[in-house]
Amino acid sequence: MTYCLALALDDGLVFASDSRSNAGSDYVTTYGKTHVFPLGPDRIFVILTAGNLATTQEVINRLRRDAQAGDDRPSLATVEYLFEAADLVGNVSLDVQEHHARGLARGGADGTATLIVGGQIKGEPPQIFMVYPEGNAITASEETPYLQIGESKYGKPILDRLAHRSLTLADGARLALVSLDATAKSNATVGMPFDVTLYQADTYEIGASQRFGRDSVAYQALNETWNDGLQQVFDSLASSVPSDGWYLC
Amino acid sequence: MTYCLALALDDGLVFASDSRSNAGSDYVTTYGKTHVFPLGPDRIFVILTAGNLATTQEVINRLRRDAQAGDDRPSLATVEYLFEAADLVGNVSLDVQEHHARGLARGGADGTATLIVGGQIKGEPPQIFMVYPEGNAITASEETPYLQIGESKYGKPILDRLAHRSLTLADGARLALVSLDATAKSNATVGMPFDVTLYQADTYEIGASQRFGRDSVAYQALNETWNDGLQQVFDSLASSVPSDGWYLC
Repeated sequence: MTYCLALALDDGLVFASDSRSNAGSDYVTTYGKTHVFPLGPDRIFVILTAGNLATTQEVINRLRRDAQAGDDRPSLATVEYLFEAADLVGNVSLDVQEHHARGLARGGADGTATLIVGGQIKGEPPQIFMVYPEGNAITASEETPYLQIGESKYGKPILDRLAHRSLTLADGARLALVSLDATAKSNATVGMPFDVTLYQADTYEIGASQRFGRDSVAYQALNETWNDGLQQVFDSLASSVPSDGWYLC
Repeated sequence: MTYCLALALDDGLVFASDSRSNAGSDYVTTYGKTHVFPLGPDRIFVILTAGNLATTQEVINRLRRDAQAGDDRPSLATVEYLFEAADLVGNVSLDVQEHHARGLARGGADGTATLIVGGQIKGEPPQIFMVYPEGNAITASEETPYLQIGESKYGKPILDRLAHRSLTLADGARLALVSLDATAKSNATVGMPFDVTLYQADTYEIGASQRFGRDSVAYQALNETWNDGLQQVFDSLASSVPSDGWYLC
């Protein structure tokens, strides 16, 4: 499985992904799931991928080929709005799924893919979209400034508690790492290294991208601070909750 | 949907359940999912239920009827080991599912149920079992002292971080409430009031049981302390994580 998420903040966008891929439990591999399309000076896209690896790889390859073709075919280089980019990615995803439908049906395999498409085209604010396997898409909202794909449930409560649009990009990155960490601790099909990519609004280039492996000092410190802090908050529940019955004993 | 969990601690057992039941999104109701069988003086059982409400209600009704029958039929009053109680509950669940199989198949409805059976029979320590829809069961372990049924993913990370057998019953109750709260915040099919039931080892009676509704002062305080504490820990990540690249900016 996979867990990827994106945050749409006032300052810009945060993208984060795990890198575990598995075909059954006896074939576990590492694949990056964050794909950057620097098609500036007036546009940039980041795509996060979940689902069938053959499908998502071919989707990314087709998108890159078409963006570089330089002719008048619809591509990420030619779309004028970000929702059109999401629609384009959905179309390519459907095309790839249909291209292999006969073979996938023979093997009974699931060839579907779910993607997050984020970025900015000049004239619009930065945005993120989640593209469903059916090819249609939704964007985030003011109140729910994040989108998730893959194993999304484990890492959702912390987003629901702490995510809001006024977070800085660095805070967004830390929140994404905490959400990824919670997921990887509870589900063996989601694993390190984690990729985090930051995009500051109106820059049309990636501000920072970093891979966090098990040996990352920063990640270990974040992990330790979070775990110790959580333990302290939990310990404080006993004394700070007013005496209202048995459960404070 | 539903979310129930049980903790097997050195001091005894903690049971917790939400109370939301829904048939589609336009028929949402409140049903307790914690069922106590005080069959003392040498035994006590607590059963938590998830799945088809008609199935789980009939399972509980049959179990109560058989335990009160006083004859030699196998029942919770006659089993000698807790794993036999789990096996019995699994058999009754299968019987009920098969009893209604023809009608359920006509409507295409899912009649399955998953249950947690916990308690103590004299001569054994307190134990908890999860009974699958297929009728077989697993128990908790030293390292993973909890079992969950229903919408289990949202509330699992906090258990994986904080649950261990040496928690007091009161700490176990607070941890269960935090796990329930995380789930209810992220999934509208899990909701208050929450029922928490504590069993202290070797007492063969329920030590405490409490229902937490939206107006519970204790629950509001717990919720507030947890949210504020989490925010503080998150804020502290920025300063306590050593400077290792961009994301500390």
